[in-house]
Amino acid sequence: MNITHLLDLTALEMGRQLAAGEMDHVSLCEATLAGADDVLLDKVFITLTPERARREAGLSLRRQREGRPRGPLDGVTVAWKDLFDVSGTPTTAGSAIRRRGDPASADAAAVRGLTAAGMVCVGKTNLSEFALSGLGLNPHFGTPRNPHGTGPARIPGGSSSGSAVAVATGAVPCAIGTDTAGSVRAPAAFCGIVGFKATAGRLDRTGVLALAPTFDSIGILARSVADVAAVEAALRGVRPPGVAPSTDASRIRLVIPDGEWVDEADGAVRERFLDAVSVLRRSGADVQRRQLSPLNEAQRMLDSCGSPVAAEAALSHSGLLESSEADLLDPYVTSRLNAGRSIFADGYARLMRERPRLRATLEGELAGAFLVCPTVRRTAPPIEPLSRDGRLYTSQEAEALRNTALMSFFDLPGISLPIGADEQGMPLGLLLSGSTARDAAVLRVARSAEAILA
Amino acid sequence: MNITHLLDLTALEMGRQLAAGEMDHVSLCEATLAGADDVLLDKVFITLTPERARREAGLSLRRQREGRPRGPLDGVTVAWKDLFDVSGTPTTAGSAIRRRGDPASADAAAVRGLTAAGMVCVGKTNLSEFALSGLGLNPHFGTPRNPHGTGPARIPGGSSSGSAVAVATGAVPCAIGTDTAGSVRAPAAFCGIVGFKATAGRLDRTGVLALAPTFDSIGILARSVADVAAVEAALRGVRPPGVAPSTDASRIRLVIPDGEWVDEADGAVRERFLDAVSVLRRSGADVQRRQLSPLNEAQRMLDSCGSPVAAEAALSHSGLLESSEADLLDPYVTSRLNAGRSIFADGYARLMRERPRLRATLEGELAGAFLVCPTVRRTAPPIEPLSRDGRLYTSQEAEALRNTALMSFFDLPGISLPIGADEQGMPLGLLLSGSTARDAAVLRVARSAEAILA
Repeated sequence: MNITHLLDLTALEMGRQLAAGEMDHVSLCEATLAGADDVLLDKVFITLTPERARREAGLSLRRQREGRPRGPLDGVTVAWKDLFDVSGTPTTAGSAIRRRGDPASADAAAVRGLTAAGMVCVGKTNLSEFALSGLGLNPHFGTPRNPHGTGPARIPGGSSSGSAVAVATGAVPCAIGTDTAGSVRAPAAFCGIVGFKATAGRLDRTGVLALAPTFDSIGILARSVADVAAVEAALRGVRPPGVAPSTDASRIRLVIPDGEWVDEADGAVRERFLDAVSVLRRSGADVQRRQLSPLNEAQRMLDSCGSPVAAEAALSHSGLLESSEADLLDPYVTSRLNAGRSIFADGYARLMRERPRLRATLEGELAGAFLVCPTVRRTAPPIEPLSRDGRLYTSQEAEALRNTALMSFFDLPGISLPIGADEQGMPLGLLLSGSTARDAAVLRVARSAEAILA
Repeated sequence: MNITHLLDLTALEMGRQLAAGEMDHVSLCEATLAGADDVLLDKVFITLTPERARREAGLSLRRQREGRPRGPLDGVTVAWKDLFDVSGTPTTAGSAIRRRGDPASADAAAVRGLTAAGMVCVGKTNLSEFALSGLGLNPHFGTPRNPHGTGPARIPGGSSSGSAVAVATGAVPCAIGTDTAGSVRAPAAFCGIVGFKATAGRLDRTGVLALAPTFDSIGILARSVADVAAVEAALRGVRPPGVAPSTDASRIRLVIPDGEWVDEADGAVRERFLDAVSVLRRSGADVQRRQLSPLNEAQRMLDSCGSPVAAEAALSHSGLLESSEADLLDPYVTSRLNAGRSIFADGYARLMRERPRLRATLEGELAGAFLVCPTVRRTAPPIEPLSRDGRLYTSQEAEALRNTALMSFFDLPGISLPIGADEQGMPLGLLLSGSTARDAAVLRVARSAEAILA
């Protein structure tokens, strides 16, 4: 079995083939490890866990033979962003400082959840250092290359860069990331796959290195919404549905917000986004384009008070800048942490105080509808100029997560769906977000939208 | 009836005399208004409400004649710190900017509560501008003079300066203040009366101008713990107890914390405080002197991160420094708001994040015991040098609220009890604090301690 055979396989189809004996557990495991080892060279993985993968594949095979599989994901391969503790491996967080750290003594809660569902852990994926950037560059472990496009290498998006590329290249059918301001949704859009971010706190973050605890949430990168729904259930300790529920198109209500989130997207991105929404409308969805005033108010407040994510990140990593290892940090991380430390408390307190009111107002204005906008405002830019032009880096960085970060401020669960590619073959994403805690509804609507847009 | 007749009268004794017909409602009202008018000249009151007082006294008299009094506080006079909305009067907050503001259109919830208990509102008392200082100086409305001592005029303490002096001079038997970092407990100690601060959020703050919402709480200044307990019940909408409950001395457990809260008090203050605790011990209370590590940890964190009260105050009054009226502010208020605006978000976020853990640890270490320390570390200093020496002002200010502010960080309900005077006749206070939400227990223990120390 060659890794390229797996390229278009979804997690659920892989699980089905394994259960039906159409695919062999051991061959899958070995092919995946071999493929990941190739990919490791391409900076997608930081650590492989071959012994664990072989043991788990063997156990899955035995369950299949004994007729007691654990559900539709039993035997399916998965990779973890290297912010999650996987017992026996260091959690590097993409940082040179943690590269030789002590191995984790236990699995993160999320890792335990997918292991319990029978999934096979193949390794840990690359990321932006400390999950602090939306572009995905990493000077310590290298930058995984976006598999799309024909010209110079493009960014994968970040911070869950390796998880996105691992799925986009077919190394694994799904991978787990974290999303604080867009770190799953943005790389999914840049790489042309599905990326889901849960409501913060809905999925157990025990054993995941914190960035900004108020906003940190767990996300899933996959090739279909059904896969995301199955894995999301497994993460909650619920038996994954074999068939993901969907919503009848005529009952879908969407709102395109007036404002920069659509207007300031690159011309081609905006056009394809509006085309996709038109297709949904023609299939029966109710689509409104209107002002959602809490979005405008929150964006103004964020622009004037500074990023609460940056402030909390500075707190999470306080001491690092004064440590003897500070010179080992990516200079961009140093500058981001310094910027976070310069945010004032009254602005942060204001954002935290106004947030519940803004969220409630937005929920009222949405009234059960789902918010749609482009996930990112332009397609993935080339890596090379970014790594030598700090000003370009900073402006692209700010732009990459601007749409998703606002949705995170409101704690909206959201999913980025692929909606084709631009003329250079670079993928585009549509971001569908629902009110806080309506994760299941987001997944149902996304499943229908995916089928319509296919 | 002369106002001096009322000097030693508690609220409950006044209520009893009114109910028994031993005191006349109308005479009390007129004597109080006349006395308060004198006191107004001494900067204790900002606004009197003679029409309301006469109306309420008349209604109370009618209830007494008709044999349907509203409880032990019916007809008793009360004054309000001018941060509370009293319908028909401007809420000046002690600021020249608000002096000619629109009158409040409704009573604050607390005002409604005491009115429902039959109390007679005589007016609004002076305070530090925007409740922003523990010394009680006010350049706009003047500084009420501490009624104690024979030498140069001493500070009343703040920010509930007028409320404290109104009670200490006998103008009213009780007055209501607010306490964010010590603004009721400190002036009570400086003026030799009882001052209680509730757990934040326990008493309804609707209609009270905010300073730092996480910490703002309502407090009561009176001449006895029984009065405080009665008024506290009325503020919660509960019928005030005629006899306040107490705890048997043998069941009282007190902890004197090791550290600066006692050690850095002025020699005479520390000595009298330890004497008072010895008296309680000889009466059967269990007294331990030990380390309470969360206090030390929190104090270090506050010293390094900056005051969360100052940060929230800067937010509450954002815009003021840029307004066209900024030059009308007390320069000290300007400097305090500027200092609040310079506190960084990561430090504030750290304090807010660690606070629940520190509180839980302290609760565990107290294990039902009550924390005792001097309320303020020295007796009230003379006003005069403070108003011309900014450096002295700042150091005295920092010291005045240092013990109480730490207890507020833990959201401990607390009460300052008078424990005599120093050689200059200046009063001293003992601060008794209990775990969050144990307000009733604090009042029971305080009632016993007061009887023992009398």
